[in-house]
Parts: sequence; C-alpha cells; structure tokens
Amino acid sequence: MNNIYLDYAATTPVRKEILEAYKKLLDISYANSDSIHALGSEAGKYLTAARKQIANLLNVKEKEIVFTSGSTEANNLVIKGVAMAYKGRGKHIITTSIEHPSLLDSCKWLEENLDFEVTYLPVNKEGKIELDDLKKAIREDTILVSIMAVNNELGSINDIYKLSKYVKENSIAMFHTDATQAMGKENIDYSYVDLYNFSGHKIYSLKGSGVLVKKEKVRIVPLISGGQQEFNLRGGTSNYHNHVMCSKALRIGLENHQKEYRHVKEINKYLITKLNETFDDLIINSPMDASPYILNFAFKNKRGEVIVNALSNAGIYISSKSACSSYSKDYSKSVYAVTRDEFTSKNSLRVSFSYLTSKEEIDIFVKELKRIHDELKG
Amino acid sequence: MNNIYLDYAATTPVRKEILEAYKKLLDISYANSDSIHALGSEAGKYLTAARKQIANLLNVKEKEIVFTSGSTEANNLVIKGVAMAYKGRGKHIITTSIEHPSLLDSCKWLEENLDFEVTYLPVNKEGKIELDDLKKAIREDTILVSIMAVNNELGSINDIYKLSKYVKENSIAMFHTDATQAMGKENIDYSYVDLYNFSGHKIYSLKGSGVLVKKEKVRIVPLISGGQQEFNLRGGTSNYHNHVMCSKALRIGLENHQKEYRHVKEINKYLITKLNETFDDLIINSPMDASPYILNFAFKNKRGEVIVNALSNAGIYISSKSACSSYSKDYSKSVYAVTRDEFTSKNSLRVSFSYLTSKEEIDIFVKELKRIHDELKG
Repeated sequence: MNNIYLDYAATTPVRKEILEAYKKLLDISYANSDSIHALGSEAGKYLTAARKQIANLLNVKEKEIVFTSGSTEANNLVIKGVAMAYKGRGKHIITTSIEHPSLLDSCKWLEENLDFEVTYLPVNKEGKIELDDLKKAIREDTILVSIMAVNNELGSINDIYKLSKYVKENSIAMFHTDATQAMGKENIDYSYVDLYNFSGHKIYSLKGSGVLVKKEKVRIVPLISGGQQEFNLRGGTSNYHNHVMCSKALRIGLENHQKEYRHVKEINKYLITKLNETFDDLIINSPMDASPYILNFAFKNKRGEVIVNALSNAGIYISSKSACSSYSKDYSKSVYAVTRDEFTSKNSLRVSFSYLTSKEEIDIFVKELKRIHDELKG
Repeated sequence: MNNIYLDYAATTPVRKEILEAYKKLLDISYANSDSIHALGSEAGKYLTAARKQIANLLNVKEKEIVFTSGSTEANNLVIKGVAMAYKGRGKHIITTSIEHPSLLDSCKWLEENLDFEVTYLPVNKEGKIELDDLKKAIREDTILVSIMAVNNELGSINDIYKLSKYVKENSIAMFHTDATQAMGKENIDYSYVDLYNFSGHKIYSLKGSGVLVKKEKVRIVPLISGGQQEFNLRGGTSNYHNHVMCSKALRIGLENHQKEYRHVKEINKYLITKLNETFDDLIINSPMDASPYILNFAFKNKRGEVIVNALSNAGIYISSKSACSSYSKDYSKSVYAVTRDEFTSKNSLRVSFSYLTSKEEIDIFVKELKRIHDELKG
C-alpha cells in the first residue's frame, strides 16, 4: 500500500528534529511559565527565548509577538479585537470573498453582534484582489482591511505590499494579513502590514500553537481575557512547549527556504506537465503564478469527493477543499471566484506539496489518478 | 539540592503513562482531523473516541463535550458566548468576587463592550457563597450565574448542587461552574449545572487542551468562529493529540480518585499539624472543610514573595497566589475575602498537593520554611 501525503496545506507532519526536541522538553519541563518560583521562571525563559527568536526572524519587536492556539484564533482575535478597539472611529471593515472560514465567520459575527458593516472584495481571474476594487471600497469609517497573503485553496498570491501601502497611506484603517499559507513559503513584504499571523502546524511543528504579529501601536481588545500572559492580550496557562517548537520550526523553515522552495517548484511543474500529458478533461484552477506549494484542479465531469476517497483507498492523501470546511456541502468560494463554474467549484481537487515530496510520489499519484479517472468513465 | 514541587494547583507534571502514550500518538498520527481522506478520518476517530470517553466518564452526551485550549478559553467562551446568545432575554449576570481572572475579566469585557451589568457575590468567612446572597442578587433579567466549584487560592468548596438547584428552579438563568480545581478531586453534583469546564494540564495531562461540558439545550455564540469543529462552537484545526490525552488523564484520575484523595487528605492534615507545632505566628486561611489539595496560610509579619523565593532557592516550589495573577501587585481577592486583612492577603502562601506528594517532602518543606522564617526574624 502507498503512503503518499499530498495535503500539506491542511497540516504538516512534525519535522524529525522538532519532534525530538519536543519530547526532550516535555521530559525536563512542565511548570506554569507564570509561576514565580525557579521552575516557573525556567519555563518562562523558554517562552521568552522563543518569542525573541521569532521576533528576530521576522524583524519585529519581542512585544509584537503574541502566541495563540493557532491561526483560527488569531484571525478571530484580529477581526473582533481590532473592531472592538476602534469601533469609536468607524464600523466598516473590508475583507475578501475568499478568506479562510475563521476570518469570514468572524466578520459575520461582527455584523450580527456589533452592527458592523463588511465589504467583501471580489477576486480577479487569477484569484487575486485588484487594487482598484480596494480603492473603491475604502471609506472614511473603514477601520480594518484584511486580505490573505496566499489563498489556501488556489495558492494565489496577493500583492500585500502594494495593497497595504495604499491602505496605510490613504486611510486610517489597520491592515491585516492572514499569512498562514505564506509563512516560510512565499517572501511577502510586511512593512506596511499592522497585523499578520501563522500556525505552527502548517510549518512542520505541533498543533495548538501559532503566532500573531501585532505592531506595537495597534490596539486590540483581547478575545480570551484573563491573566497577564502575552502582554495581557491572550490569557491562559501558556502552551510554551508548543510555542518553543513553533519558533524552532520557523527558524529551520526559513534557513532551508530557498532550497525547499526550488524543490517544491520543480515538483509542482513536474506534476502540471504530467497532468497535461495524461488527461484531456482536466482544468487547472490555480493561476500560473500561484504559490508552488498548492495546485488546484478539477475534471470536467468527475466528482471531486469520489476521487479523494478512491485515492485515499489507494494510500494517497489529497483534499477537495480546505479541511476547515471539508464537511460543508458548499462549493469552494475561491474556486468559484476564478472559474465562475458551480460544478468545478464543488469538485475541485487540492494537492499541496512539501520539501518531502518526491517525483516518485508524483508518478504514483498520477498513475493512480489515471486509473481512478478511467474507472469512473465506465 | 531538593526538588520538591508543591504547586500542583498551578499546573501538574504529565503522568508517565500519559507522556508515553502521547509520544506514541505523535509518532503515528499527524493529519488534520477534519481532512476527509483516511489519515484525517483516523485522526478524527481518535478525537471522537476521546470525546466519547469523557462523555461516558461524566455521564453526559458526546455532543455536550466541547474541546477548548483550556479553562481560560472555556471561561471566556461561557461568559461571553452565553451572554451574547441570551442578551435578548436580559443583560444581568451574577458571579462571585473570588473567581479566576479569566472569568472576572470576561465579565468586565461584557460590562465595557456590551453594556452588561454584573453582580459580584461576596463570600463568607469560609470563602463560600451563601445561598441567601444569591437569592437577593437574582433578578428577572439575570441570564447567567457563574460560581466556581473549588477556589484556586483557598481550596474552599461551594455547594454547587444547592446553588444551581435554586437557580434552575427559580429563574431563567443558565448556571455555570468553573470546575478547574474540582475535576478529579472533589465529588461535585453537576445535575443542575448547564455548563462546566476543566483543563488537561491540571489533571496530569498536557497544556493546550481542556473541556467545556455544555448541556445540549444551552445556546452559545462561539468565541473562536470558523470551521465545523466542535459542533461549530470552536473553530481551528483540532489539537487532538492533546485532547486524547486529556480524556485518558481524566479516566486515570477518576479511577484512582479514592486512593489518591485519601493520600492527599492525610498529607494535608500532616502538614497542618506540623505547621501548628512549628510556628506560633502562622494563620491558616483555608477553611477547615476546604479541598485537601490546597492549603493557604500566611505569617503575621513576613512577606510572602520573599518566602516563595527563598524556598525556591532551596529547591522547594510553592506559590504566593494564582499563577495567572502572579505578577500583579494586587492582593489576593480570595484571601482578602476571608481574612479582611490587607497584609495577609498580599502575603499569603499557597501549597498544593498531589498523589505524588510524600510525608518526607512535607518534612523537608517545613524544616526549610522554619529556617527561612527564623532568618527573616533577624
């Protein structure tokens, strides 16, 4: 039986060196990092060192690093917390129609509970936000603009530098970027970005840990109140074991980025070539200049879920859409935005790659996909 | 050098068998438990089994178990989420003056952001809520009453059965109990309780995982929106490794409860006797019928923090107050409530016990405490 994982955008296995370091840390330290005795201080030191390392890697201040349980929490904290902090200035938010469910649902929460108005920007045929659309949407009472860096289903990359620069130079709004699928993969210029976040488990670390970068001057109302943790912005006993590993994973990921990126780009190109050679009823939904870590495609008349399940039975693991909406009957909003086709957006397949992915795995994947495809014909 | 940990109310070491099982699970499973392929389903099965086990242990339904990142998040989810769900019925909440910071700060958040009114019940000299005070406070627009089961600084135990029964029989309010210091330690009758929560890391499991029990009929607005996880009540890629261990820790804790409780009760009694024999300027703040897992006391003229630090230097780890407010200059609200003495409530010491605590550790602790006490005299 095969064991080919091609769903790295949903979550990643833990890097071997991270897993080993994690197990060691679990063996030697367990105290509450807020306890004032020596065991607590020691735990606190691990946490502080992790915070310092991430701050250095991202070239921000230590106090700008807020550990969370992951990007879903961070997206909620930003959307709800910034809205609540600046609601005196205005109650209008701009985001896009293709954000992660956690971000869209947070916006809906504000509409339903705090009388906010939200503008959802469309995307162009490459799955990207047009600056002109943003310009038209921005208002005097816009307090927050949130645009993801890399789309989780298509891999399309937004020009965050250009969009954030415009917002910061022409409005009072804060600019947020969900960088979950970008961190350690795409070089995004965050100079004009006030807040951005990512998750440990998408960069080969553990689940339950993520980072929100929040520029010092930005105010935010905590979502999880209580306790002095995270500069009073996120209460709760720190999950410092996981945060330490998140910082380590970021360091290793950034150190190896160039090499791993080249490898993934080659793998992606290799798969596209093979798919085009093998099938004549296949549409690639990801734009040409998408992040090479994600490839989205669909067959003209084949149901996506059936293919995902048949591949899974053959030991090959891909997804039909974001895991966070995998059980919803809805079509993929991102794919619909670029294809305007309901069938395609209900039946698209997402393959996502890693430095671990080999050409041999791709060969087997395409072979099995061909077999399943032909069986579905009959 | 000693290595005597007496701060189990802040956090616990992970049980050996839990740590081993955890490491094994980390080695064999990493997928996103919401992915629809076989690796995802397998992860989902671990999560479902953990949910089922906890539901069975607590005699509730599976769909009444909501995994969170811990009790701070759960306290926030309950206070904010119930308030938002029922704000049409009324905007009054009742809680107590001695709750955990996460609960008190959540109430403050509602007062500041959603125009809620909160009544903070006082405690009697045993650190407990009087039913008469609750009766007086309850109003037609009271939508939620939240009273902790066991106080985290004193160990005082509230009569949750009596209090919740009154509320459910005489009002429309929901009843919530923060059971963080009670779970696996005190036998609380939750029959009339609509919502209660606890954390894995207080019952010898990992940080980053906790459980909210929410009776089926209770509505709640999610705090962390997005994704279908936890019955749409808590978005985010599930930290299922930690949740699985939380369920295992609960099972082991409940199985061994009687034996471990008897041991801790004996240890507690042993320490009280030794303290009374050794010191004549010591006041015990915990009530006589407190949970034996926590003992709070103070010296008449000695600074608590100095003693905590001196003990720490000798390899003995206790705390002055809750870790979640350890760096605040405030006095302990719980200790003040029972002593009405500012010095005592700023300088109290909290010792908390485990099935792991031995009489030998207590002997060394008292000996070192005596040495430090006498040195501070001079």
